[in-house]
Amino acid sequence: MNFDLATSILLLMGTFITLTTDFGLKDSYVASMKGVICSINPQAGIVDICHTIEPQNIRQAAFIFSIAYEYFPPNSIHLVIVDPGVGSDRRKIVLKTPRAYFVGPDNGVFSYVIDNYSPEFVPGTYLVRPGKQIEAYAITNSKYWREPVSNTFHGREIFAPVAAALSLGVKVSDLGDRVDTVAAFPIPRPKLQKHLIKGNILHIDYFGNLITNIKESSLSGIGRSITIDVSDHKIEGLVRAYADKSGPVALFGSSGYLEISWPNSNLAALFKARVGDDVLVKPQKNRKTG
Amino acid sequence: MNFDLATSILLLMGTFITLTTDFGLKDSYVASMKGVICSINPQAGIVDICHTIEPQNIRQAAFIFSIAYEYFPPNSIHLVIVDPGVGSDRRKIVLKTPRAYFVGPDNGVFSYVIDNYSPEFVPGTYLVRPGKQIEAYAITNSKYWREPVSNTFHGREIFAPVAAALSLGVKVSDLGDRVDTVAAFPIPRPKLQKHLIKGNILHIDYFGNLITNIKESSLSGIGRSITIDVSDHKIEGLVRAYADKSGPVALFGSSGYLEISWPNSNLAALFKARVGDDVLVKPQKNRKTG
Amino acid sequence: MNFDLATSILLLMGTFITLTTDFGLKDSYVASMKGVICSINPQAGIVDICHTIEPQNIRQAAFIFSIAYEYFPPNSIHLVIVDPGVGSDRRKIVLKTPRAYFVGPDNGVFSYVIDNYSPEFVPGTYLVRPGKQIEAYAITNSKYWREPVSNTFHGREIFAPVAAALSLGVKVSDLGDRVDTVAAFPIPRPKLQKHLIKGNILHIDYFGNLITNIKESSLSGIGRSITIDVSDHKIEGLVRAYADKSGPVALFGSSGYLEISWPNSNLAALFKARVGDDVLVKPQKNRKTG
Repeated sequence: MNFDLATSILLLMGTFITLTTDFGLKDSYVASMKGVICSINPQAGIVDICHTIEPQNIRQAAFIFSIAYEYFPPNSIHLVIVDPGVGSDRRKIVLKTPRAYFVGPDNGVFSYVIDNYSPEFVPGTYLVRPGKQIEAYAITNSKYWREPVSNTFHGREIFAPVAAALSLGVKVSDLGDRVDTVAAFPIPRPKLQKHLIKGNILHIDYFGNLITNIKESSLSGIGRSITIDVSDHKIEGLVRAYADKSGPVALFGSSGYLEISWPNSNLAALFKARVGDDVLVKPQKNRKTG
Repeated sequence: MNFDLATSILLLMGTFITLTTDFGLKDSYVASMKGVICSINPQAGIVDICHTIEPQNIRQAAFIFSIAYEYFPPNSIHLVIVDPGVGSDRRKIVLKTPRAYFVGPDNGVFSYVIDNYSPEFVPGTYLVRPGKQIEAYAITNSKYWREPVSNTFHGREIFAPVAAALSLGVKVSDLGDRVDTVAAFPIPRPKLQKHLIKGNILHIDYFGNLITNIKESSLSGIGRSITIDVSDHKIEGLVRAYADKSGPVALFGSSGYLEISWPNSNLAALFKARVGDDVLVKPQKNRKTG
Repeated sequence: MNFDLATSILLLMGTFITLTTDFGLKDSYVASMKGVICSINPQAGIVDICHTIEPQNIRQAAFIFSIAYEYFPPNSIHLVIVDPGVGSDRRKIVLKTPRAYFVGPDNGVFSYVIDNYSPEFVPGTYLVRPGKQIEAYAITNSKYWREPVSNTFHGREIFAPVAAALSLGVKVSDLGDRVDTVAAFPIPRPKLQKHLIKGNILHIDYFGNLITNIKESSLSGIGRSITIDVSDHKIEGLVRAYADKSGPVALFGSSGYLEISWPNSNLAALFKARVGDDVLVKPQKNRKTG
């Protein structure tokens, strides 16, 4: 390829491609994808989001990715490769939103992204119409793939080169045909009752903090004076920051979710908490003196 | 922002921002910070130093960071985010030395950096006057922050954008007011007696090498013919390189500290050694024949 | 250094330097090497291949690296630092092939690379003449090193600066004298008999897939209708992709090797398989009915 000076400098300013995979840290699979991207667009800025997703855990990838991608510059290209169906007839997709591109298998890894755009579930299926501001394309045009294509690593031969092509300005409509529906799982939302919110633990982070699926808006019917039951323990009240109190605390964390934490300790280990455990939020009882 | 060609090229040459955190490898918190930096300065060169600091282990972060940062180019910007006091009234600081900028919570993570500049301890406190060649600033000007600021992740909303602003040429004095004292812990130095050096294990690395707090200069009173007692084992003499001898060896490692190692084995596991264990260095006795 | 505009832009396009080490993820040794590279060539694109090689495991590094490096752009510079002999008289080498440069200790870490170029084993030694299209140089010219050179970390003081120098256009012949032989281990190939292939497990990946040393071409005498014995289990037949079948499957994976996998499970854990285990491939018997 040849570029004039202006284009060169524009290209040099770079587009960002992020990577989220279940490839782990002991292999060189991620590096192979990066090599492919660099070979097509040496100026792409490649940023790792996470590679320690549990093998085949689509929901974990979807969540971990969902709390990071919005911090990247406009027009970033996000690859999420957790792909147990590689080599089967599962589709390969690109989503285009007003802010970004998303490239990966059509298996639900982008469920949280799609959820932001009021998708419409197609009854009786795991498919959604992804919403007015999203366009979805099936990746079918092999012109932008790396040949030969293996049956076990489309990240390297299809998704990485397609992301690199997008970063060079290839139009998303050149990658394949537009499709109306994509695969997505329903976002696990808490059940809101009059005096009770029934949620779950979505994720446990490196600190042992429990990230629940309860957002601040869910508390509108109950108020902020709450008692939380989780993994056979009870937490009273909300704090503002980890350092506000010693012992277990509850607060709204940096991703907007209710978080249960034991500052300077690993609460998940102490509570033997697990992803999926129930989280019950009730109005706090006034404690009376005996 | 608009730049002329010369400025563009200068910017394209890039400034380096390094990251040291206790965020681990299973979450996307580090990636969020990188997204914020890229969004402000797409040309910043971001380099990970370490993200597997034990949660809240300020001393470990301070040490691990201290043996790497000096290898980066002049004017690099070093973020160290181990921040158990996030959201409390602990200060947020920038340090400026003749060679680099340091951005993070004011909790001692830069103790080894400060120690290089002859700081003066303020009696009865954990504060130091950081030395003549260091300027310290409290980060208070929210103009350069990412709003809204959470109470649990200043790395993303304050420290990362401030580092990115510095990388674009914002003056450190624009970030907040200069301060006279900063938090620091005393560097753990060995006790030097006439025929005995009493040190400690500062760090155990991936190879199982024990990094002690004893530097070559500490041996001036004793000489290099030494016996070392550590974790209930005895090491005789110093070698030059790992491959010089089989079995346990002692040598001065690449960071300038006395290191105890079992080449091709994990000495820390074999000796059941732990960070903090005593390390006693004595002159070697002449071995006599019976 | 001063560059004119054209050279600046050329430099800005960047050269890639990859890193494969046994330094792990809990230390800052890798970061020190990156700092050294950035200080010499701020425009080098640094890409991690793998840093969790088992300490001193030269064969593992050689293999993991061998399945990734070919995906990088032409003229990439590949550093592989697994160096138990650091500080001894083991040589330090640069290999130059038509496509890339390789920098590291002369201890076999590049055995798979060399194997692609029909090397000639020197009887009675672990040395090979590396083949017509490879040039090998001993790194002896200290002009491009970082002084002072430690005896325990040539990655930082010799290999990283030499790689950075190459990325700036320094000629490989300036780094030291050409040599005729380099260290290499024989690539572990399967034994092909008339109705039996005897191979081994080369590597177990993060998914628990067993990567064997059997390539598709080895099956020419037997055909694709095979039975595989591995770690006390039997696998019948070959599939095309992981998703083709439930339970344990065998297929030719993305690196060209016969791979044994249990889709959506960790086969290595279920089979208690270990690197080095025998893998026997036989023609499938026709199953007769009672």
